[in-house]
Amino acid sequence: MLDVGIVGASGYTGVELIRILAGHPQVRLTVATSRQYAGKNVAEVFPSLNKRIDIRCENLGVEELLSRADFFFAAVPHKTAMDIVPQLLQAGKKVVDLSADYRLHDQAVYEEWYQPHSSPEFLGEAVYGLPELYRDDIRPARLVANPGCYPTSVILALAPLLREGFIDPATIIIDSKSGTSGAGRAAGVANLYCEVADSFKAYKVGGSHRHIPEIEQELSLAAQSEVRVSFTPHLLPISRGILSTIYATPNEKSNQTDLHELYNDTYGSEPFVRVLPAGRQPATQHVRGSNCCDIALQADTRTGRIIITSVIDNIGKGASGQAVQNMNIMNGFAEEAGLMGAAFFP
Amino acid sequence: MLDVGIVGASGYTGVELIRILAGHPQVRLTVATSRQYAGKNVAEVFPSLNKRIDIRCENLGVEELLSRADFFFAAVPHKTAMDIVPQLLQAGKKVVDLSADYRLHDQAVYEEWYQPHSSPEFLGEAVYGLPELYRDDIRPARLVANPGCYPTSVILALAPLLREGFIDPATIIIDSKSGTSGAGRAAGVANLYCEVADSFKAYKVGGSHRHIPEIEQELSLAAQSEVRVSFTPHLLPISRGILSTIYATPNEKSNQTDLHELYNDTYGSEPFVRVLPAGRQPATQHVRGSNCCDIALQADTRTGRIIITSVIDNIGKGASGQAVQNMNIMNGFAEEAGLMGAAFFP
Amino acid sequence: MLDVGIVGASGYTGVELIRILAGHPQVRLTVATSRQYAGKNVAEVFPSLNKRIDIRCENLGVEELLSRADFFFAAVPHKTAMDIVPQLLQAGKKVVDLSADYRLHDQAVYEEWYQPHSSPEFLGEAVYGLPELYRDDIRPARLVANPGCYPTSVILALAPLLREGFIDPATIIIDSKSGTSGAGRAAGVANLYCEVADSFKAYKVGGSHRHIPEIEQELSLAAQSEVRVSFTPHLLPISRGILSTIYATPNEKSNQTDLHELYNDTYGSEPFVRVLPAGRQPATQHVRGSNCCDIALQADTRTGRIIITSVIDNIGKGASGQAVQNMNIMNGFAEEAGLMGAAFFP
Amino acid sequence: MLDVGIVGASGYTGVELIRILAGHPQVRLTVATSRQYAGKNVAEVFPSLNKRIDIRCENLGVEELLSRADFFFAAVPHKTAMDIVPQLLQAGKKVVDLSADYRLHDQAVYEEWYQPHSSPEFLGEAVYGLPELYRDDIRPARLVANPGCYPTSVILALAPLLREGFIDPATIIIDSKSGTSGAGRAAGVANLYCEVADSFKAYKVGGSHRHIPEIEQELSLAAQSEVRVSFTPHLLPISRGILSTIYATPNEKSNQTDLHELYNDTYGSEPFVRVLPAGRQPATQHVRGSNCCDIALQADTRTGRIIITSVIDNIGKGASGQAVQNMNIMNGFAEEAGLMGAAFFP
Repeated sequence: MLDVGIVGASGYTGVELIRILAGHPQVRLTVATSRQYAGKNVAEVFPSLNKRIDIRCENLGVEELLSRADFFFAAVPHKTAMDIVPQLLQAGKKVVDLSADYRLHDQAVYEEWYQPHSSPEFLGEAVYGLPELYRDDIRPARLVANPGCYPTSVILALAPLLREGFIDPATIIIDSKSGTSGAGRAAGVANLYCEVADSFKAYKVGGSHRHIPEIEQELSLAAQSEVRVSFTPHLLPISRGILSTIYATPNEKSNQTDLHELYNDTYGSEPFVRVLPAGRQPATQHVRGSNCCDIALQADTRTGRIIITSVIDNIGKGASGQAVQNMNIMNGFAEEAGLMGAAFFP
Repeated sequence: MLDVGIVGASGYTGVELIRILAGHPQVRLTVATSRQYAGKNVAEVFPSLNKRIDIRCENLGVEELLSRADFFFAAVPHKTAMDIVPQLLQAGKKVVDLSADYRLHDQAVYEEWYQPHSSPEFLGEAVYGLPELYRDDIRPARLVANPGCYPTSVILALAPLLREGFIDPATIIIDSKSGTSGAGRAAGVANLYCEVADSFKAYKVGGSHRHIPEIEQELSLAAQSEVRVSFTPHLLPISRGILSTIYATPNEKSNQTDLHELYNDTYGSEPFVRVLPAGRQPATQHVRGSNCCDIALQADTRTGRIIITSVIDNIGKGASGQAVQNMNIMNGFAEEAGLMGAAFFP
Repeated sequence: MLDVGIVGASGYTGVELIRILAGHPQVRLTVATSRQYAGKNVAEVFPSLNKRIDIRCENLGVEELLSRADFFFAAVPHKTAMDIVPQLLQAGKKVVDLSADYRLHDQAVYEEWYQPHSSPEFLGEAVYGLPELYRDDIRPARLVANPGCYPTSVILALAPLLREGFIDPATIIIDSKSGTSGAGRAAGVANLYCEVADSFKAYKVGGSHRHIPEIEQELSLAAQSEVRVSFTPHLLPISRGILSTIYATPNEKSNQTDLHELYNDTYGSEPFVRVLPAGRQPATQHVRGSNCCDIALQADTRTGRIIITSVIDNIGKGASGQAVQNMNIMNGFAEEAGLMGAAFFP
Repeated sequence: MLDVGIVGASGYTGVELIRILAGHPQVRLTVATSRQYAGKNVAEVFPSLNKRIDIRCENLGVEELLSRADFFFAAVPHKTAMDIVPQLLQAGKKVVDLSADYRLHDQAVYEEWYQPHSSPEFLGEAVYGLPELYRDDIRPARLVANPGCYPTSVILALAPLLREGFIDPATIIIDSKSGTSGAGRAAGVANLYCEVADSFKAYKVGGSHRHIPEIEQELSLAAQSEVRVSFTPHLLPISRGILSTIYATPNEKSNQTDLHELYNDTYGSEPFVRVLPAGRQPATQHVRGSNCCDIALQADTRTGRIIITSVIDNIGKGASGQAVQNMNIMNGFAEEAGLMGAAFFP
C-alpha cells in the first residue's frame, strides 16, 4: 500500500481525490490538509464520504507532512503550489501538482500569464501529465504537472490531427463550455446558484484565459510549429463537465485519410478516451464523475472545415481523475486502478 | 382594438403569444386553435394564464377562422403553415407566420432544405420579419415571415459588420447554444428532464441545421455577396435562451473604425437591441422572458479575430416577442406595445 | 406620478422592485440606494434593466433621502430597517418595510426571535401587509410591514379554514419548500451553484425558523385562539418559488361544507389569488415572476386529513410584488397596477 | 462468477443495474433484454457505458433466457413482471423483481391498488427485499421483491421508532420529494425538461399513490399494529434523489431514550445507512449515485413532534443499488460488493 497525502483537501478537486482514493485498492490516504476545516473529519465536511473514509483534516506545514506520506497531490491554487512542491521533492517525495505552476516549460511564458516563478529550476524536470501523450515520461517522473481542464479537452481532441499535419494550425478556433465547479469552491456572488442557474454566458473572451498558453504549448509541440488559437470559455449551468467545440480547416494532406480511423488507431486501446462512431455526438452527461474523454469528428463539406467535439468531466479527467491516473503510472500500478467507474445515467 | 387569432396555440410559442397579447393594450385575442386541447380553457392548459385571459381552445378549419379575427399568428410547424397561410391571405387577413415556410426567398433553397413548397407564389411577397433590418417593408406587408430563433441571434450580431464590409465573410464561424424550449413541446425521450438536465451537447454538427440557409440568405444580403457559414447548434440545460458566439476575421477596412460606435449608431435607438459596453458579456438570464437582444464585441489581438456574442430569448425575440413586434408595426401600433417588460432577475 | 424611493436596491428584492416599478404607470423611481454599487447605473449592476430604466445607485443617509421621494420601500435586512423606517415616518413619508422589523405586534415575541427592538412604538401602528386579509387597514396606513415569503404562502392557504373554525389548529403541519433566492444575494459557500443544484435538503428543522412567530401570529388571529405549528423549510434547486404543503385535521363543523366553495367565495374576486379546481395541483412555475398565489385543496379520506398546497413566487407575492400591491392600496391606485403580468411558461 | 441477466435493460433502473454490475467483482452480465433496442450494443444506447461493458440488447422470450443466466433482475413494469417471474422461478432461477408485483403480502390489497394478480401463489414466498430489516429471510430466498423507492426512504426512517413503540402511529405524516427519474424513461409531455426544470409541485395528493399500501404494510409490521399514513409525493427538478420529511408525535415511552442512540444502535454497523449527528440534515446530493440512506432526527420542542428526514438515491438504494445488495446476500457475496462507491460531490 502506498501512503498518500493530499495538500488542499477541501476544494472540489480535493474532495474528488479523496473519493477516488477511498476506492483505490493500492493506496492509503494518510494525511489531508485543510486550513479552513482543520480538526474536522472529512465526512463532516463532505457528508457523501461518511462511512467511506475516516480521516481528519489537518492544518500542517510542509515539514510536518514529510513523515506522513510518500506520495503527494498538491491541490492548492497556483502560486501556493510553488511554495510547497519544491520542499516535497527535495525530501524525496513524488508529487502530482494539480495547479498551473509547473505546466509551462517556458518561464517567461509563465510569468507573462501568471506571476514571477519562485522555483523555475523545476520547470524543466516537470512532466506534463497527459498520459495519452506522455505516458513514458510520466512513469519515471517525480514531479508531474497535472493538465488544466480546458487544455485536456482540447489537446486530446487535436493532437492526432496536428501530429499528422492534417490541419492548418492557423485556423483553429476553440469554443469551450465548462460547468461551474471549474470556478472552485470560494464564495462569490458570480457563482451563486441564482446567478448561474437557468443562464449561460461567455467569459474572458478575446484571448485572455490563462489556459491559452498551456493549450498553445502542447498544440505547438504536436504540430512541431508555433500554434496560436482563438479560445473562448463559457459558463454552463451544470456542476461538472466541459465540452469543447473545435473548428479547423484540413489541408490537402488529410484528404486521403479516414480521420475516424486515425483517431481509433490513436486512442483505440486507451481505457479513458473513447472515439465516437461517425454521426454520434458526445454529451457531458456521458462522462460525469468518470475519467473518460469522449471525442467526435464531423466534416462540414459546405465550408470545408472539420469540427471536433470533446467532453470530459472537468474534475475527473480534467483534474483529480487524471491526477490519480498519473499517480498510477508513476507507481507502477495498473493505469486504470480506481478509475474504471462509469458515469451514472441519468 | 384589433381582433387577433392564434393558429396553433398550445405549443411553447403559442402560449407565449397568448401571454404577451393578454397584456397588450390594443388587441383582443378572439380565437385560439388547438386540436389537442379543443374545448379546454387556455387557463386549464396553461395555469399560469388563469385570471389573466379567458378563452377556450378550439379545433377549427381555416374557413371557420375567417370571421373570428382580422389578424393571425400562424404558430404551427412548417409545412402545416403552407396549408393555412394562403387561405388567410386570400380572405384579406394579415398574417405573421412563425414557421420557416416563407422565410426563404428562393424556392429551390427551401425545397433543398425542407420539402416541396405548395404556395411559392407568396415567397416573393413575404417580408422577412426582422424589424431592425426591414421595418419599412414590414409596415405595409400582409405576410410577414417571422425569423427563426438562431438566425435572429446571428443576423442582428453580424449585419452591421457585413454591411460595412468590415469582415471577411469566408471566415465566419457561428457556435450557438439554445435552451430546450427550442425543441418544442412534443413528447420525446431526447427532451426528457433526465436526458437534458446537468448535461450539454452539440447536435446537427457539420452544416445540417435548417436554419443555415436562412442565416446565409440574410448575411449574404447584408454583405451583398454570397456568404457561407459554419454553424453548430448546441443544447443547453435551460428552458429559454440562445447565446451565439461568432468568430470572424476583420479586414483592413475595419481598422480605422470603432466597432462599438458602429453598433451603437446602428442600434442605439432600438428599444430591443442593447449593445454592451466594452468588456461586458451578455448572459441569457438578462433577456429571459423579454424581447431583447444583447450584443457584445471583443477583439482578440493575439489572433486578429473578432468575437461577437449575442443573446436572445428564443421564444421572445426569437419567436413570439418578435412576432408581436411585427404585428405592432403592421398595424401602426407603437412598436414596443406589450413588449417592454424586462427579464426578471434572478 | 408618485415619487418613489428604494432603500437597499441591490438585493434580489430590490432589483425586483425596480423591475416592477419600471413598468408601473403611476410612479416614478427617483432614488435607489446601494452602498456597494454607489455611483453605478442600475442597468450596469442588473443588465436586464438596460434601456428599461435609467437611474444611478447612491449611497445616501436618511436625511438626504427625504427630499427625493414621497414614498419609500425599505428593502434592507431586519435590524437595519429599524434604523431607517422611523426617520422616514417622522418626516411624513409613507413606507412599505420588506423586513421583519414591524411584522410582529408583540415586542416580546420579536425580541425572543430576533433582537432588542429600537422603535417598538411603531409596532402598534404598523399594518401587516397582506391585502387579501387587511386591505382596509392598509389603505390609510403610513407604515406597512410587508409579510415574509413563507408566511404569505401559509396564511393565504389557511386563513379561510381557520376563520370558519373548520380545522383543529393543533394539527397543523407545514412542510414548505423555497427557491434559493430566498437566501438573498450575499456570497456564501452554502448558496453556490454547485452546492444547491441537483440537490435538496431541509434546514432549520424542529421549529427554529424566524418566520414561525409571524405565521403563528396571523393564524392565531384568524382562528381567534392561539395556534402553534410545526414548520419545516426546505431548499429547492430553483431560483424562485415557494410551495407549502399543509396538513390539518378538519373538525365536525367542516363536514357540511364544500371547501372549494369556501375558498372560491373568499378569493374569487381577488386578482392575485387563484383557487384551483378539485383534482389540480399548483406548480411554482405557474407563478414564477408574478404576484399570484395558487391554492389547491385535497381531502385524504383514508386518514381524515386535508392537504392544502399553495405556491407563490417568493420574490413576487412573497416580497416585492406584494410590496407594490401595498403601495397601490396606500396611494389609491388600482390594486393591480403594474402587477398583472402572468408568469411566462416554460 | 455468477451469470446474471437483466430483463428490461433499457430503462433508468436497467442502465443503473448494468453500470453497477460492470464494476462487480463476482458477476458476469450475460444477457440484457430490450424490445426497443434489440440488436444494439448497450454502449450505443447508453454511451456512458462505452469501454466499460460489451453486451448487446436482445429481444428474447422467457424460454430463451433460461439458458443464458442463473440469476435474474426483472426490471420491467408491474404486471409485466408477473408474466415473467413465475417462469424464471419454475426453471430454478433466483430472481430480484424490481416491480411492485410481489411486494404486498395480501393479494386483496395488491388488487385494490393495482389489478388482478396472476400468480398470487408466490406472494407468500416472496421476501420483501429491505436487507436492513429482512437480511436473514433474503439469504435463502429465491424470489426477492425489491422495495419501492419512496417506501425505502420511509421504512428505514421509521422502523426503529415503531418497533420500540416510541411514536403514535396515527400521527405519521410523510411529505416526500422525488427526482424525476422516478417517472421512468417513457416519453411524455409532463416529464419534458421545460415542464420540470425550475419548477416544483405535488402530485397524487390525498392518499392515492400506489406506494402507500407498501409503506403501510411494512410500518404495520414494525409497529405490530395497523398503521395508516398521510403520504404526499412531490416532483423535484433533479434527476436522482428522494428526501422524505416525516412527522410523528412521540409517546411517553420514548421520553427516557436518546433517539440518536437508538438509531445508531440499529444502523451503526450497516454499510449503507448513515445516521447523522444531532443538528445535521441530509441532502440528496450526499447519496446521489450511491446505495446509501442518510437519516436525521430532530425534536420540535414547541409542538412536541419529532421530524425524521431521510435521503436516498431513488435509482440507487431506491431501486438498482438495493437490488444488487439483495443479489449479494442471496448468493453469499459480501453484501457491499460493487456498491461501496461514494456519491461524487459536487
